[in-house]
Amino acid sequence: MSVLIVGSTALDSIKTPHAENPRLLGGSASHAAVAASFFSPVKLIGVVGDDFPKRYIQLYKKHGIDLEGLQILAGKTFHWSGEYELNMNNRRTLLTELGVFETFNPTLPKKHQDARFVLLANIAPALQNHVLDQMKRPQFVVADTMDLWLNIALPDLLSLIKRLDAFVLNDSEAHQLTKEDNVFAALKKIHKLGPKYVIIKKGSHGSILSGPKGFFICPAYPLHKVCDPTGAGDSFVGAMIGYLATAKGSVDNNIRRAMIYGSVVASFCCEGFGLKSTTGVTRKKIDARVKELERLTRF
Amino acid sequence: MSVLIVGSTALDSIKTPHAENPRLLGGSASHAAVAASFFSPVKLIGVVGDDFPKRYIQLYKKHGIDLEGLQILAGKTFHWSGEYELNMNNRRTLLTELGVFETFNPTLPKKHQDARFVLLANIAPALQNHVLDQMKRPQFVVADTMDLWLNIALPDLLSLIKRLDAFVLNDSEAHQLTKEDNVFAALKKIHKLGPKYVIIKKGSHGSILSGPKGFFICPAYPLHKVCDPTGAGDSFVGAMIGYLATAKGSVDNNIRRAMIYGSVVASFCCEGFGLKSTTGVTRKKIDARVKELERLTRF
Repeated sequence: MSVLIVGSTALDSIKTPHAENPRLLGGSASHAAVAASFFSPVKLIGVVGDDFPKRYIQLYKKHGIDLEGLQILAGKTFHWSGEYELNMNNRRTLLTELGVFETFNPTLPKKHQDARFVLLANIAPALQNHVLDQMKRPQFVVADTMDLWLNIALPDLLSLIKRLDAFVLNDSEAHQLTKEDNVFAALKKIHKLGPKYVIIKKGSHGSILSGPKGFFICPAYPLHKVCDPTGAGDSFVGAMIGYLATAKGSVDNNIRRAMIYGSVVASFCCEGFGLKSTTGVTRKKIDARVKELERLTRF
Repeated sequence: MSVLIVGSTALDSIKTPHAENPRLLGGSASHAAVAASFFSPVKLIGVVGDDFPKRYIQLYKKHGIDLEGLQILAGKTFHWSGEYELNMNNRRTLLTELGVFETFNPTLPKKHQDARFVLLANIAPALQNHVLDQMKRPQFVVADTMDLWLNIALPDLLSLIKRLDAFVLNDSEAHQLTKEDNVFAALKKIHKLGPKYVIIKKGSHGSILSGPKGFFICPAYPLHKVCDPTGAGDSFVGAMIGYLATAKGSVDNNIRRAMIYGSVVASFCCEGFGLKSTTGVTRKKIDARVKELERLTRF
């Protein structure tokens, strides 16, 4: 089954102590769509400017991503520029140019409105709600977010969370939302906001699921070196919904393994700048790392 | 088989935003010995002053701990006082009175020199080395440490590490020792210092083993509330070696499950002040949490 993914489609300029990488393909929807494409056909909803490089359109197409919902408007593509410190844990935003994203009004092509698996990747919760308003009867809706929306659009975010099957956020966002330091106490509070499944991402420490079958402690794939973590969280949730959309059986039975696939695709994402490493991956390489994670956690 | 444990035996005064707990039974060896006692007979090597409460001697005895190697000297028992912040992650030492610990010279009773499983819990590495010098042919020696010894006794610590089968430290200590932010890169460097097994503890994020069979990603047992994390790391390594000393088969085959037992006993430790929760535990309760961890990590 195909997956509908809405989010940001951007150009990222990423600086680390070792390298500068101007105008890479980036944005939450780009990372999530490529990650999901290893498992399911993907329909992308986004907006870019007329400066958006043709090679990035080709790259989406190489991954079989349906671009009917990608608007190309006169103006500049959303451009984000950030700098990582040596330990890759601290990121500083240098520049944010919204460009055509400023007036983005995601409109779903008619044939997209029937999608059953929907990922509302990180964008303003008002836009995530707007996309959801256009869906007919989605079977499984997951959303990701970021600290910015907790700060400036909390009412919109809370109204979105109510409508979700699964909500994904990182540990510092969970703390900000619930005022709980303890991740398990935070999960409990977030459930009360609506979603059946809540997933808290903890970067290199893995992630935790809380759902009808209890908690799942999901490991991160061990990396000896992180090149660029930008998009790792988007890759995680993209691979997760991509896997869920094609796996046989219920979400309840598949979501743990879906998260493992998410961890693995996120690990590939971290090994190259932007999408450079992810786009070179194959399903075979992904499956090998999943097997390795099985060995690394068995006792 | 019995386990020989040397380390500090202390009185801990622990302050949190909610409570003050003066002169609890504490010290690395006390926590480790009680944790190990659920699996193996334990021989304790330590020193206390003549102010050491009789009820704590009784408590050791209740856990079947052999006290022939516990010196009782004229003077004051080592007393540590610390304060935790609300989130339990930041600890501040208020007071350290070494007392009789200042001149501690651990001397092994003859019958202890044959011990096969040895835990050098956190004390000065010179003392850990001195205990090892008195051992005849230990089969498995594990040591824990703390940041203080990295700061003031690094040469002693490095000479100790060479002699170990397993070295256990936490993530910030691993960073301090290797200058590596990445835990897997740090593990690789620490192996080169000698030990066959290296374990990095990450608190609520679990721990990572590196050994001949590769890495093992060991989860922490999920706690909704941490009362007092003092001694959790000592409980982890104590339960681990206690389990290893009685499990059938090779250390190589048992060490993963031993770490899981360590995680579980550490979780009980965190649920009460000092040793209050740990001493109330039973093997049945421990086994139930181990089973739960199996369910929480299966995919």
